[in-house]
Amino acid sequence: MADWQMITGGVTAPKGFRAAGITAGLKPSGLPDLALIVSDVDAIAAGVFTTSCVRAACVDYCRQRLKAKHYARAILCNAGQANAGTGQQGLEDAIESAQLLAQALEISPNAVLLASTGVIGQRIKMEGLRSGIPNVVAALSETGSDSAAKAITTTDLVTKSIALETRIADRPVRIGGIAKGSGMIHPNMATMLAFITCDAAVAPHLWQEMLHRAADKSFNQITVDGDTSTNDSLIALANGQSRTPVITEMGPEAEKLEAMLTEVCTYLAQSIARDGEGATCLIEVQVTGASSDSAARQIARTIAGSSLTKSAIFGRDPNWGRIAGAAGRAGVPFNQEELSIWLGEFCLMENGQPLAFDRAGANAYLVQQANASISPLAGKSVVSTENSNELLVLEGNYPTVFDREAASIQFVNHPVIIRVRVGEGSGQGKAWGCDLSYDYVKINAEYTT
Amino acid sequence: MADWQMITGGVTAPKGFRAAGITAGLKPSGLPDLALIVSDVDAIAAGVFTTSCVRAACVDYCRQRLKAKHYARAILCNAGQANAGTGQQGLEDAIESAQLLAQALEISPNAVLLASTGVIGQRIKMEGLRSGIPNVVAALSETGSDSAAKAITTTDLVTKSIALETRIADRPVRIGGIAKGSGMIHPNMATMLAFITCDAAVAPHLWQEMLHRAADKSFNQITVDGDTSTNDSLIALANGQSRTPVITEMGPEAEKLEAMLTEVCTYLAQSIARDGEGATCLIEVQVTGASSDSAARQIARTIAGSSLTKSAIFGRDPNWGRIAGAAGRAGVPFNQEELSIWLGEFCLMENGQPLAFDRAGANAYLVQQANASISPLAGKSVVSTENSNELLVLEGNYPTVFDREAASIQFVNHPVIIRVRVGEGSGQGKAWGCDLSYDYVKINAEYTT
Repeated sequence: MADWQMITGGVTAPKGFRAAGITAGLKPSGLPDLALIVSDVDAIAAGVFTTSCVRAACVDYCRQRLKAKHYARAILCNAGQANAGTGQQGLEDAIESAQLLAQALEISPNAVLLASTGVIGQRIKMEGLRSGIPNVVAALSETGSDSAAKAITTTDLVTKSIALETRIADRPVRIGGIAKGSGMIHPNMATMLAFITCDAAVAPHLWQEMLHRAADKSFNQITVDGDTSTNDSLIALANGQSRTPVITEMGPEAEKLEAMLTEVCTYLAQSIARDGEGATCLIEVQVTGASSDSAARQIARTIAGSSLTKSAIFGRDPNWGRIAGAAGRAGVPFNQEELSIWLGEFCLMENGQPLAFDRAGANAYLVQQANASISPLAGKSVVSTENSNELLVLEGNYPTVFDREAASIQFVNHPVIIRVRVGEGSGQGKAWGCDLSYDYVKINAEYTT
Repeated sequence: MADWQMITGGVTAPKGFRAAGITAGLKPSGLPDLALIVSDVDAIAAGVFTTSCVRAACVDYCRQRLKAKHYARAILCNAGQANAGTGQQGLEDAIESAQLLAQALEISPNAVLLASTGVIGQRIKMEGLRSGIPNVVAALSETGSDSAAKAITTTDLVTKSIALETRIADRPVRIGGIAKGSGMIHPNMATMLAFITCDAAVAPHLWQEMLHRAADKSFNQITVDGDTSTNDSLIALANGQSRTPVITEMGPEAEKLEAMLTEVCTYLAQSIARDGEGATCLIEVQVTGASSDSAARQIARTIAGSSLTKSAIFGRDPNWGRIAGAAGRAGVPFNQEELSIWLGEFCLMENGQPLAFDRAGANAYLVQQANASISPLAGKSVVSTENSNELLVLEGNYPTVFDREAASIQFVNHPVIIRVRVGEGSGQGKAWGCDLSYDYVKINAEYTT
C-alpha cells in the first residue's frame, strides 16, 4: 500500500540540505550539543510549537519569524540548556544566536530558526555557543544528519532518524527527519523536538496545513496539545530542490506527499515513545468505534498515558481493568456496555462484560512482545547518559561502560498492542507510549542535582 | 480562627452513629475487608461520585438511590474487589448486597448505600459477603470507627480518620470522617473513598451543596473531576441527632457547619495525598494571583500532579523549572512575566526572572520538611501490604515484619510548600500531592499478578 521506500541519509537525504552536529561545551558531559540544518536555497518553513504559557525564548522567536514570513534557510539547535523561564535575557540570547549564525552563513538573520533543549531555567552557555557556531558551520556536510541527530539528544539512549522517497511527476521526492524525546513522553515530561526536511515544491499554506494534520496523528498522540513542555517544537522545511512542479492545492500529489510526511512523523513519534526514560517496550493503543477520529485519538492517548496501565505493562500484567479505567476518564462519553478490550489477540472484555481469558497466554504475549523489541540495555540500570562519553550501565551490580552506538535498538516493529472498541461509530485513532519502570523515577529524581 | 476542636471517635463521634469493620474473606490477605456505618435514624444523605464513563456498580446504584430520595440509614463498603467493569452481574451483586444488609438491619433496601474498592473487573466475592453481613451487623458499635476505617483500606499504609466538634444554638455538633486512598492519588490511580457523618440537622439541598463545595476545595484538589477512577465516592450523612434547629439556608450557622465540613474533607484529602503509594512526603501547592479561585485551583492541581515535579521532590531537588513548566501547561492563561515561585521561604523565580537562590538551603528545606513528616517505613521497601497480616518490609536487604499500627505517622503537619503567584488577580487555591518514588512503580507493577 505504501507508495514510498525507506532510504538512508536522514535530514540530508532530500536534495539541497546539509547538516552537522558538534561539541560546543554546552553539556557538562562533553557530548555533542550543537546541531545545524541548512538548506542551500530558501525553503518553505512550517512549525508546530508548544501551547504552554511558559515557553522557551526560541519558541517565541520562531513563532514571530514564521508569522512574518514563511521561509527559512537554517535551523540551529542547542542541547544542555532549555533557555525557558530565562526572561528578557533569554530572548536576547536567542536573537544573538540567530545573528551570529546568519553572519557565519552569510544569510539574513530572519532566515534562521532556533530550538533548545535541556534544563529549564538555564540560559544557553553563550560563550560556548559563540565559539561553536563557526565550527558547526564548518562541519556542515551532505552526510551530516547522524551527527546532528546525536547533538540534539539529552537523556535519549539512541538517536531517531528516518528518510523516505517517493516519485512525483516522475521525479524522486524525499522527506527526511530527526527527532529527540525522552522524558516519559507523557507531555509534561519531555522536550520533544523534530526537524523535517523535504525537497518537494509546495505552497506555504498547504505545507503548514499538512504538517498540522500529520502532527495531530503522530507527535500529538504521544504528547498532548495544550499539555506540552516549554520547548516542544516541530519544524519542517521544503526547499523545492526535487525540481517537481509546485503543489498548491490538495489532490493526488498533495495526498501522496502528506501521507509520506505523516509516515515520517509517525515513525519519529513511535521512536520517541519507545525510548521513553526507563522504558522497556513500546505500547500502541488502537481505538475504534468512536463518534469521531479526534474522540478516538483522545481515548487512545489517555490509555497510552495512564501511569497505572504503563506500570501494569512493565509488570507484564494483562490488567484490563486499568485500561477500562483510563478509557472511561478520557473525557469522551461512551456507553460502558459497548466497551471491548483486546491485548494482542486476547479479548479481555466484550461489550462491557469481562471474559475468562487465558491469563498465562496474555502474560506470555506481553513478555514476547517486549522481548522482541528489547534493547541491549534492558534490565540494566543506566547510571549516566549525560556525564560521560559513553553510557555507564549496571550489569548485575557491576558498572560497565556501554557504547552508545551499540545500544541502537529495533525500535518500533513489535509494540505491545492494546485494542479498544467503544461503540459503533466510525471514528478511529492510535496513540503510542512506553511502560513505566523504576528507572524512570531514578532518572527524574536525579536529573539536575 | 477555627471555631471547632478536634475530638476522637471518627465517624462514630457524632451522635446516633455506629460502625464496624470485619474480615469477610474478600481480600486474599485475610485483612479486614467489610465495613459498615449505620445511623440510628434516617439521615439526610449527599454524595459526590466519579465522573468516569466506566463506573463501578455501586456508583450507579448510589446515584440512582440519591436521585430518588435524599436520606439513608447505612453505608456498606467492601474492599478487595472494585465490582467495576463487571456488567449486569455486577449490578445484580450490588442489589443483592443491599437487600441482604437491609434484612439484617431490618430497614428498607432503599436506605442502603454501597461502596467498593479493589481490583477493577473483579466481582465481589459474594459468598464471603453473604456470610459477612450478619457478622458486620453484629459487630456494630459506638466506638467502631477505627475498625471500619481499617476495613476500607487496600494498599493504604495507615488509616485516615478525623472528628471535629463545634457549637450551634449552644449545643455540640459533630462531624466525623474516614477515608481511604493510596494509588498515586493523581486521579487515574486510586479509588478515593470518604464517608462522613454529622449529627447536625440540615436541609437536603443545602447539605448536598455544602458537600459539593467542600469536595471542590479538598478531594477534587487531589483527584480531578472528570478524571477520576471507576469507584471514587464521597458520601455524607447528617442525622439531626444533635437536636439543633434545622439549618435550611445559608447564614452564620450554615457557614460554620460548612467550614467544619470543609476542614474534615481537607484533612482527609491531605491524609490521602500523604499516604500515596511509595510517598515519602506531602506536598502542598498554594497558588495566588489568578483570575478566579477555580483557575488558581487548576494550576495548583497541575503542579501537584506533575510527575516531573514529584520526582524532583523525591530527589529533594529545588528544580523550579519543572514547577514553572507544570504551571504553564495547566490550561489557564497567564503572563509568564508575572510568574513567581517559592519553595518554603526560598524565592526561586520572581516576575518571570530566575533568581540566584541558595540552592543548598532550598535542598536542606526539602530534606527537613520530608524528615519532619517521615514515616517509620520511609526508605524501606514495602514488600507486601495485601498478602500478609502485617506489612512485610525490607530493612536494608533483610525482610522484616512490621506492625501496621506502628507505621502510623504524623500525617499533614509539615508539608513541603510550593507557592506560586501568576499575576495580580484575587483568585487563590491549594492542592496536595506526594512525591514519586521507586516504590510507586514497584507497587503498581506487581498489584494483581
